[in-house]
Amino acid sequence: MATEVNDGVAAAVSEVNGGDVEKTVVTFTAVKPKVFVEASKVAEAVAFYKGAFGAEEVNRVNHPKRKADQELPVLVSAEVKIGSSSVIVSDVSEDSSATEKGVGSGLVFCLETEDIEAAVETAVKAGAVADGEITEGEGACYGGRVGKLKDPYGVVWTICTPTEKKCGDVEA
Amino acid sequence: MATEVNDGVAAAVSEVNGGDVEKTVVTFTAVKPKVFVEASKVAEAVAFYKGAFGAEEVNRVNHPKRKADQELPVLVSAEVKIGSSSVIVSDVSEDSSATEKGVGSGLVFCLETEDIEAAVETAVKAGAVADGEITEGEGACYGGRVGKLKDPYGVVWTICTPTEKKCGDVEA
Repeated sequence: MATEVNDGVAAAVSEVNGGDVEKTVVTFTAVKPKVFVEASKVAEAVAFYKGAFGAEEVNRVNHPKRKADQELPVLVSAEVKIGSSSVIVSDVSEDSSATEKGVGSGLVFCLETEDIEAAVETAVKAGAVADGEITEGEGACYGGRVGKLKDPYGVVWTICTPTEKKCGDVEA
Repeated sequence: MATEVNDGVAAAVSEVNGGDVEKTVVTFTAVKPKVFVEASKVAEAVAFYKGAFGAEEVNRVNHPKRKADQELPVLVSAEVKIGSSSVIVSDVSEDSSATEKGVGSGLVFCLETEDIEAAVETAVKAGAVADGEITEGEGACYGGRVGKLKDPYGVVWTICTPTEKKCGDVEA
């Protein structure tokens, strides 16, 4: 197949006003689709994906304030790996990137890069619409930085710090 | 990171009635999220993802009957790679796996494996609901075999022949 690409490296070129070409090279590590489940069902869904698709849990994010003896579960999101791909399962009630579509097939893509500002800027120049400012402490892992975009086709993209960085100190 | 997994290999264990454990090993190569756009906008969306996120087009599927001079576009779906991950952009009007949610964030996962029957069987034992029989000629590439499932959380999964196999003879 003549489709070999350099994993993890992508370059974007955008034209700025006046006709000058400004080249911004943004490196993305991965696109991770995020699916939403009801508040108490992250652990149950992860168990299901293990049994159904042989998923492996590779990251989990616990709520910073909840304790194990409280009614609400400690686990708010988990990343599972199926084959070479990752999917994030997230508690819809705790996730600010959840769309109005709610649980199930309401999709958000997490696009991981170190350079969130440049990534958002390039996408907006290409026609995406930024949704608010870049924030901290939201998204798949508490503590990461996240920019949010809507593309011209209705898909929501969050531009996020890579999981390995922001989740480095999270209990596995 | 202590999360290294063997890419492309997943094992699923399911318990059958009577308490016997039946081990079915299904190997998945990748999970590819599929997003839906209006009929005439696949090419436009691919161009956008190239500009916005540095995507590379790695596969395209042309309609088997349309010609370049017809009103409807020849291109019905394309796979783009962003970082190490693939996303499939599909014409909603030509794709039987499109959900009732329509364009934008209506998500379907394409889960690629050589062993579609075993994958569907394992997932159904784990609690997924099969949607119809395994069919041919639908999905991302015409000619591939596809099983369709809905999981307990409302997410639609299509179990598909890997792209490299079924798209091997498609014009790039």
